[in-house]
Amino acid sequence: MKIINGGVTAAKGYKCASMRVGIKASGSNRDLMLLVSEVPATCVGTFTKNKVKAAPVKWDMNVVYETKKAQAVVVNTGIANAATGEPGLNNCKLTAEAVNEIMGIPTEYVICGSTGVIGPQLPIEKIINGVKELSDKLSDSPEEAENAAKAIMTTDTHKKDIAVEFEAGGKTCRIGAMCKGSGMIHPNMGTMLGYIMSDVAVNYDLALSTLREIIEKTFNMVSVDGDTSTNDTVIFMANGLASNNEINDKNSDDYKSFYEALYEVCEFLAKNIAEDGEGATRLFTAHVTGAPDYETAKIIAKSVITSSLTKAAIFGKDANCGRIFCAMGYSGAEFDPDKVDITMVSEAGSIKLIDKGMLPEFSEEEALKILEPKEITAECELHMGDAEATAWGCDLTYDYVKINADYRS
Amino acid sequence: MKIINGGVTAAKGYKCASMRVGIKASGSNRDLMLLVSEVPATCVGTFTKNKVKAAPVKWDMNVVYETKKAQAVVVNTGIANAATGEPGLNNCKLTAEAVNEIMGIPTEYVICGSTGVIGPQLPIEKIINGVKELSDKLSDSPEEAENAAKAIMTTDTHKKDIAVEFEAGGKTCRIGAMCKGSGMIHPNMGTMLGYIMSDVAVNYDLALSTLREIIEKTFNMVSVDGDTSTNDTVIFMANGLASNNEINDKNSDDYKSFYEALYEVCEFLAKNIAEDGEGATRLFTAHVTGAPDYETAKIIAKSVITSSLTKAAIFGKDANCGRIFCAMGYSGAEFDPDKVDITMVSEAGSIKLIDKGMLPEFSEEEALKILEPKEITAECELHMGDAEATAWGCDLTYDYVKINADYRS
Repeated sequence: MKIINGGVTAAKGYKCASMRVGIKASGSNRDLMLLVSEVPATCVGTFTKNKVKAAPVKWDMNVVYETKKAQAVVVNTGIANAATGEPGLNNCKLTAEAVNEIMGIPTEYVICGSTGVIGPQLPIEKIINGVKELSDKLSDSPEEAENAAKAIMTTDTHKKDIAVEFEAGGKTCRIGAMCKGSGMIHPNMGTMLGYIMSDVAVNYDLALSTLREIIEKTFNMVSVDGDTSTNDTVIFMANGLASNNEINDKNSDDYKSFYEALYEVCEFLAKNIAEDGEGATRLFTAHVTGAPDYETAKIIAKSVITSSLTKAAIFGKDANCGRIFCAMGYSGAEFDPDKVDITMVSEAGSIKLIDKGMLPEFSEEEALKILEPKEITAECELHMGDAEATAWGCDLTYDYVKINADYRS
Repeated sequence: MKIINGGVTAAKGYKCASMRVGIKASGSNRDLMLLVSEVPATCVGTFTKNKVKAAPVKWDMNVVYETKKAQAVVVNTGIANAATGEPGLNNCKLTAEAVNEIMGIPTEYVICGSTGVIGPQLPIEKIINGVKELSDKLSDSPEEAENAAKAIMTTDTHKKDIAVEFEAGGKTCRIGAMCKGSGMIHPNMGTMLGYIMSDVAVNYDLALSTLREIIEKTFNMVSVDGDTSTNDTVIFMANGLASNNEINDKNSDDYKSFYEALYEVCEFLAKNIAEDGEGATRLFTAHVTGAPDYETAKIIAKSVITSSLTKAAIFGKDANCGRIFCAMGYSGAEFDPDKVDITMVSEAGSIKLIDKGMLPEFSEEEALKILEPKEITAECELHMGDAEATAWGCDLTYDYVKINADYRS
């Protein structure tokens, strides 16, 4: 498996285009993106667990669980199409019908994605006309892929995309992917959206279970503010144009290569989202080891990176393991506090700040030096078993409050 | 039941004194408090659910669950005596032994409380000498009660105490109480500590179950940053000097009067903690109604006041019910989003911002006016049943980040 150039259209048979149709109130940024596969692709996905689901989430769930195939993706930014009731769902239908009319792709093969303000209805005419225009501009050039990755951004400070190549049954397969989001970012705006396009041939059920397993360990281990959006969606499409024999055996080498490639893609994108968290100045990683089982390690790791106090301490370069220890304690996981070691690690070195549940002697100066770099990891050792888990977050800064409170002024 | 003057020593037989012994690194504030009951009192309490429990929490749990009586309370600020292992627990023992030596109170009748930095050991000599000095200064004057309420503060901006009077069996009974805290407030500092002193005669088991029930609906419905401290403790002592017939029947009028009085005290203190949350400018209340059961209402109410995005929106006076609706959705509670109404209420009026799960037309100007006051309530109606719950929180401000990140600078 190797990382290659090119974004979401790196795999065979994918083209995209994007433009500004004026859904976003301000700015000259692109706000509509169209992505098409040359042939229908096996389509799986994972969606927000929020009881309040945006219309496009309901629409896409039907595609993923009923149709199980997709050929086009239409994403808009500026309006989330959430809390929009029946009219909102109908706008997804109208979008899909436009794609069908223009390109002959079945409406039930169209994935819809929205991110932006919760409440307002979509300006559906702008979107339908935009889709028409974009259908003439489809391209697989790296430039268009880059534009697409930018078109789905809200307050992301940079695009997030990656492409990898791997071998399956002697054939070269590729995965191109892009995502946006860093929690419930912009005022009223939410959402993590991820689109992963591959030319691999893979069995639907295996693709679905694999995506779910990997999402649990990557995207679902990211937290910026603990707020789960109404729109979160990750879509994986596999159009089979790499013409490898369909991967359908979890124990095959082909599957291992596929798993490794998809994992790499998802972990890269997930870390990118954490690092680009709203107002964030640091990527903060919690790595829990020596746990009796994965679930315990996962609960503790997520609790640590979600703690507002810990996040503020990371921002303040405060060697404050009491807060990390405390966040482990209220995570709900079972462990023995008297066995816990916590070590802070960065490129500048490492320092143990909790030793068997107690605060050891340490040099504040040394600690400050280690907490200076942009990437900080808290190594939390439970000394109970061999299971481990990693979670990614960011620091809590003045800019987080500014972005989320002050935008009207 | 009526509110009366006087603080924690308002009930018969309680005296206190406080001073600065120099545990807090800086400042001239008092950091040691001694409270004594003339006679042994029935003692119940509730404690942090954090797996990482401070030494005084472990010590007090033994008093509450084994001895079931207490006569003295010693509280220090500056150091939390958490993550201090065996030496930390031994310092509680040494403190109790000092009280025993000086006042002849059995060591197992001594409640210990600490709040402050996690990690360091207590300067036990300072505390023992302080207890000696304070034992000569004990008084039931309102001034000493006020000083005591101030002595247990960390970054609280004001003292939090109250006293009430109620009738039981023709006798006048009183409850005097004080607390400190607003989440994991000061850098490294944690903890909500509450001390509720009464002269009522009440059965131990009934007092314990009543305190637990009321704490669930008051103190446990407060969140400032979602971080559960290692030291959280609420102690209720009842010395019986009101000489009412012991309350032991949940269905008696005496019990109802007692319950009402204790509830009033706990709700007052809980709201005070939320309103005084670190950096807070507003008291933000979530009132969930029309729920199928209390548990559902409670989970949703707590999720709303805990949402960083919602808290930042309240700070920004942002009529942003999408975030509240979203926080309800990810709370984990079962409800029908399409039935939900959300109305923002303040002394300036009220405005409905979610109507049957959708955003209605509304005046931004009107909304801004209603979000201006210091106390904002989100009325969340589920239209599913008759159960309701209330949770109290505060807004998320620049000062929250400042307090928790910048204290070294």
